[in-house]
Amino acid sequence: MNTRFARRMSTVRPSTIREILKVTEQADIISFAGGLPAPELFPVADILAATERVLRENGAAALQYGPSEGFSPLRETFAAISRQRGIACSTDDILIMTGSQQPLDLAGKIFLDAGDCVLTESPTYMAALQAFHSYEVRFAAVPTDEEGLIPEALPALIEREKPKFLYTIPNFQNPTGVTLTAERRQKLYAIAAHYGLIVVEDDPYGALRYAGSDIPPVKSLDTERIVIYHSTISKTIAPGLRVGWVVASEEIRRKLTIAKQAADLHTSSLDQRIVHRYLSDFDNNAHVERIRKSYGERFAIMDASLRETMPPGFTWTHPQGGMFLWVTCPEGVNTNHLMHEALARKVLFVPGQDFFSDASGQRFMRLNFSNASPDQIREGIGRLAEVCTAAALQPVS
Amino acid sequence: MNTRFARRMSTVRPSTIREILKVTEQADIISFAGGLPAPELFPVADILAATERVLRENGAAALQYGPSEGFSPLRETFAAISRQRGIACSTDDILIMTGSQQPLDLAGKIFLDAGDCVLTESPTYMAALQAFHSYEVRFAAVPTDEEGLIPEALPALIEREKPKFLYTIPNFQNPTGVTLTAERRQKLYAIAAHYGLIVVEDDPYGALRYAGSDIPPVKSLDTERIVIYHSTISKTIAPGLRVGWVVASEEIRRKLTIAKQAADLHTSSLDQRIVHRYLSDFDNNAHVERIRKSYGERFAIMDASLRETMPPGFTWTHPQGGMFLWVTCPEGVNTNHLMHEALARKVLFVPGQDFFSDASGQRFMRLNFSNASPDQIREGIGRLAEVCTAAALQPVS
Repeated sequence: MNTRFARRMSTVRPSTIREILKVTEQADIISFAGGLPAPELFPVADILAATERVLRENGAAALQYGPSEGFSPLRETFAAISRQRGIACSTDDILIMTGSQQPLDLAGKIFLDAGDCVLTESPTYMAALQAFHSYEVRFAAVPTDEEGLIPEALPALIEREKPKFLYTIPNFQNPTGVTLTAERRQKLYAIAAHYGLIVVEDDPYGALRYAGSDIPPVKSLDTERIVIYHSTISKTIAPGLRVGWVVASEEIRRKLTIAKQAADLHTSSLDQRIVHRYLSDFDNNAHVERIRKSYGERFAIMDASLRETMPPGFTWTHPQGGMFLWVTCPEGVNTNHLMHEALARKVLFVPGQDFFSDASGQRFMRLNFSNASPDQIREGIGRLAEVCTAAALQPVS
Repeated sequence: MNTRFARRMSTVRPSTIREILKVTEQADIISFAGGLPAPELFPVADILAATERVLRENGAAALQYGPSEGFSPLRETFAAISRQRGIACSTDDILIMTGSQQPLDLAGKIFLDAGDCVLTESPTYMAALQAFHSYEVRFAAVPTDEEGLIPEALPALIEREKPKFLYTIPNFQNPTGVTLTAERRQKLYAIAAHYGLIVVEDDPYGALRYAGSDIPPVKSLDTERIVIYHSTISKTIAPGLRVGWVVASEEIRRKLTIAKQAADLHTSSLDQRIVHRYLSDFDNNAHVERIRKSYGERFAIMDASLRETMPPGFTWTHPQGGMFLWVTCPEGVNTNHLMHEALARKVLFVPGQDFFSDASGQRFMRLNFSNASPDQIREGIGRLAEVCTAAALQPVS
């Protein structure tokens, strides 16, 4: 079958993360590769209690088909959470999604035709690149620094590339961990509004801030209704439930709803009701506070271990939240090669290449600090530093 | 935004079923419109017990991310079920899907480019038309009769239209309730194999047979590995869980897995484990037997009520399983108009038009017999017969 999908796939290498994850299950492996939350922090007992209430009190409804837009009381809950984050919205403005991957696929479906351009941060979330890539688009990279994407670069890119939308992860970005400053959010929004550019704002990590102060989302500025904001309970409650949400204008919601209906009819009724009941009856704020504290500690341990052990010429970001940091290696180090050395030492990371739409970025690696224990972090960074030291001593090839 | 999606949507009327379902919640309405299973038959207590075991014994794993291919023990369970249906397969041949709508969307994504042709039965499942339609394809209708699609019509259609695949629902088809005979399955497969035509075999209802004998799926004949078989627990356990599966060749599975990863990463870990535990620990065969018996009774009551009350010139199918029957009205009756009269009498059905890719079929209506009680069926068919009698007396407009 010589469809465009087949042709596109032939140019895409299998997701490195997925290949790596298959190895992760080996004993003794310390993995900084995945993007998994700490499972020991999942609120299992409260989820069980919420589930028992849902199935005892509304069992038949929880197991029946439901509306594509989502379970209305959960839409109301997510509207309240979105308002707490600074977004003016009501129940009707919310669509429930099957995790926060689905809005990427559906945004692609409703906005993108073959040959269109998408603006992204560079580097950016690899599964977003994959989702958009399947619509046979071009990517244009917005340069970033330690304060996130650089808004001043946008006008020339917009005028030259005529992008269909800008995809951005303003909080604790995947993969860099960097956060877009409030000032840059305002500049970004003013430019997008001037050009009528749609902004797809992905916010899976915003609630995981362990230092500094919250910054309102770009969507909070959205007088022109050009921002599609989406978030998820994957990082604050449990990713296995696949429940996320979108806040968007009525016109965009109408298209997303039709696309979602064709994609999976609706998100699991049971999972939606469990999440609603859990958020209604249990203290999720206290739970998220525990996650924040733990991830803050793990970041501090990883940062200290890196400082103690890594050779000169290696630098890394210092995120104030989220789950990832980003290491820049000296010129000449190729992290695709480094990965194999690290694997031999039973420590895993994700090479930077897959986070770049042009497959550049071979000097970088992403390290996850949410899924390993403090002891594993100290041990694993020690191993990684040995591998990096050996690589840095080799002549540039 | 003038994307192809936007242009396509402007030619699609909102799903009639969804519009109708919004009215269904009114008191006194008797609905034969939706495709909902009988909620009073859901195995709520057993699902609750299975969920408690899953969360108590493997809570963290049930709430964590999982592989896109699905939870391996559940893949094994679905392989065993598929083998019972006559399909030679093992665990690796199975992919878990988010319901059985998702395989339609993903088959579209991996096989279809704009302008391609899809062969379907005529009429066929409207949400399949919607899913494929979003890839901007043409449809070619395979004529059908009371034994399902007519295989002899295929060669000329295949040679003329060069379709990318044939989409078929061989068991208790939606909307007609008709079942493809064993002989025609063999003819269909021989023709597809001759031309190398992919067959997308949708089997949501096959387990719901209340009369006659099971017929092996087309996939059971698949020596050439050209058939993508998919099924779901939506009609036998609970649709709210959104769990289905695909049996397909390795080449096709690899593409579906990449497409699924971009679409929603994976199906709910919790829902997959609940279904696995429920199917392992509880007697689902006895449960499905209760559904079969109940739906058989409801069909018999609807059939008898139609015979007693409908005016001359109206005929309907006599399915041996599933959830739907299909009424053919006399020439000149337009069921889009009839629907409004029926709504005034507080009884609902789905007009035939949306099940035809060319929006013909205005003489037909689909009646669901799984979601209304026996008393509601008698009362509702009585009301519908009055509306039909009045319509049949009017001069053809």
